[in-house]
Amino acid sequence: MTPTLKSLQAAIQPVEAVWITRAYERLDLLTKPRRSLGYLEELAARYVAVRADAQARIGGKRVCVFAGDHGVTASGVSAYPAEVTGLMVQNFLRGGAAINVLARRAGAEVEVIDVGMAHDPGPLPGLIQANVRRGTANLAIGPAMTRREAEAAILVGAARAAAAADAGVTVLATGEMGIGNSTAAAALMAALLDLPVGEVVGPGTGLDANGLERKRQAVAAALEVNAVHRGDPLATLAALGGLEIAALCGLCLGGAARRALVVVDGYIASAGALVAMRLCPAVKEYLLFAHRSAEPGHARFFEREQLRPVVTLDLRLGEGTGAAIAMQILDDALAIYHEMATFADVGIAPGA
Amino acid sequence: MTPTLKSLQAAIQPVEAVWITRAYERLDLLTKPRRSLGYLEELAARYVAVRADAQARIGGKRVCVFAGDHGVTASGVSAYPAEVTGLMVQNFLRGGAAINVLARRAGAEVEVIDVGMAHDPGPLPGLIQANVRRGTANLAIGPAMTRREAEAAILVGAARAAAAADAGVTVLATGEMGIGNSTAAAALMAALLDLPVGEVVGPGTGLDANGLERKRQAVAAALEVNAVHRGDPLATLAALGGLEIAALCGLCLGGAARRALVVVDGYIASAGALVAMRLCPAVKEYLLFAHRSAEPGHARFFEREQLRPVVTLDLRLGEGTGAAIAMQILDDALAIYHEMATFADVGIAPGA
Repeated sequence: MTPTLKSLQAAIQPVEAVWITRAYERLDLLTKPRRSLGYLEELAARYVAVRADAQARIGGKRVCVFAGDHGVTASGVSAYPAEVTGLMVQNFLRGGAAINVLARRAGAEVEVIDVGMAHDPGPLPGLIQANVRRGTANLAIGPAMTRREAEAAILVGAARAAAAADAGVTVLATGEMGIGNSTAAAALMAALLDLPVGEVVGPGTGLDANGLERKRQAVAAALEVNAVHRGDPLATLAALGGLEIAALCGLCLGGAARRALVVVDGYIASAGALVAMRLCPAVKEYLLFAHRSAEPGHARFFEREQLRPVVTLDLRLGEGTGAAIAMQILDDALAIYHEMATFADVGIAPGA
Repeated sequence: MTPTLKSLQAAIQPVEAVWITRAYERLDLLTKPRRSLGYLEELAARYVAVRADAQARIGGKRVCVFAGDHGVTASGVSAYPAEVTGLMVQNFLRGGAAINVLARRAGAEVEVIDVGMAHDPGPLPGLIQANVRRGTANLAIGPAMTRREAEAAILVGAARAAAAADAGVTVLATGEMGIGNSTAAAALMAALLDLPVGEVVGPGTGLDANGLERKRQAVAAALEVNAVHRGDPLATLAALGGLEIAALCGLCLGGAARRALVVVDGYIASAGALVAMRLCPAVKEYLLFAHRSAEPGHARFFEREQLRPVVTLDLRLGEGTGAAIAMQILDDALAIYHEMATFADVGIAPGA
């Protein structure tokens, strides 16, 4: 049977709270004051619950970097020309980008997927070819893509999650590259969180004041011209999103369907994750939000969705860089869970 | 010449800002929007400046865990009996504690030093014996120790920093164990930051409401009975501190004297670092504050000293656990600095 968005949604089981309890039963036996490792203990418990296994260990880790281009770059919303998407994809494949460095540090593989690049990069060694469309249309003028294209891009992301799970990966991380994609992310945040344009638009990878004003105007125009297309989350994604953002949404859904923990990177990835949460609320418990980026709208996202980032390091790069750092802290949490001595081992009463 | 506190202070050279500039010259060539890795770039630049070397790499990492006991435990200020200090020291030496697990993850050695344990633990394999005094006196009744003892404990910490530097260590982390030491840390914070008792006293490793009230009373009494002894930072440390806190102060000073970056763990370690900063303001640039702990007074410390923690994970364990996590993020920052491709490598104009 060909997978569809419907079958994907149906495959996601809610995370059961009993596993959190089971995890804390073990954590409270370890030689430390009860709950004194705070959020680190929460991370271990979350992972146990996602895996539905009190002995859960990390199988493998993989960062899936989806590349896509954005018609809205014609509106002058980025500090970089659209060609940079293709050049950075080559950089990823050669291992020289920030995500390559940080993924190596985290012990994670990196895979790079063309889901929506404007120009066919040709047969580059290592590139996964899954192009749905050669870049989106300009969302400031009309819908970025069709509903069918958005669904196809979601399924590309879900297929990468399934391939990773088949290879033993239990922790996925969202990566992306797409000049102009913080404009699409801002439009999605405004639409799905009902926030004013001024609160969701930021400098992205380095816009000046004029550029920022053009970006605000593009997002405002996008919300207006596409108002009619925003009937449900998939329609909103198609109208305002991007092909790599749709794939990130699919990675979240597909990861949850296979009981992987999906580490969500920054602002762009959070927009994709937000669509996933609107399509299937049960996905939320499978997601770990890695960091709060320097993009001002990201703080509003965390407030509205009552989520907590693992770190706040003023990152505004994307690619999955913050997710790679959070994966290391998750590893720390699991090491605590599995490797510490218990009170019984050392002859101390558990105390407070 | 026998080292003294004076010779130690004299050995600390201010960090020169030119190295920060040099570091950013390199960071701005890397394939990422300028400054888009935020605080991670700051960490790399800080390390370059501490080492006064634009090619600086991490030599070795070591967590120095100083153990000391506190007479103030007689006032019922801890959820655990004082004997736990000795049992946890054995746990550290056997590798079963949280700091052992997280230091392994960070690729750091752990050494354990008896600088002030109340009971002689005997010749335990691996324990460094440098006991200055068998536990402090009750600071709620009078001075915790003499000025001479405080200086001796500082010099124990400085000697461990020197031994580490001799072994090629360039990143030190502060570790501590001492039932009752969050009471001493609170008293030092109140005295040195001129904060009210209510703002510096927290539950430590898990006090209930009655215990918290006893702890507040102990700190208030300590500040009153020792008012006459607080003429200078060393006198304040002697009156209100602990032997392991003095050693942590010495590790900060001794590390700075050898151009090591000293990663300061939580609330207790921050109290030791604060004494070091008061004894020698130039030490501040050599310190990296790892995390903001769940202890409420810690937030006030960061505000007053205008410092930024690397992470906030609600840790309240101590031992050096937060420092071990921050060391991994420092490693990430240095990997970015050394391993990323440049714009010239990939044919992109540096842009914004």
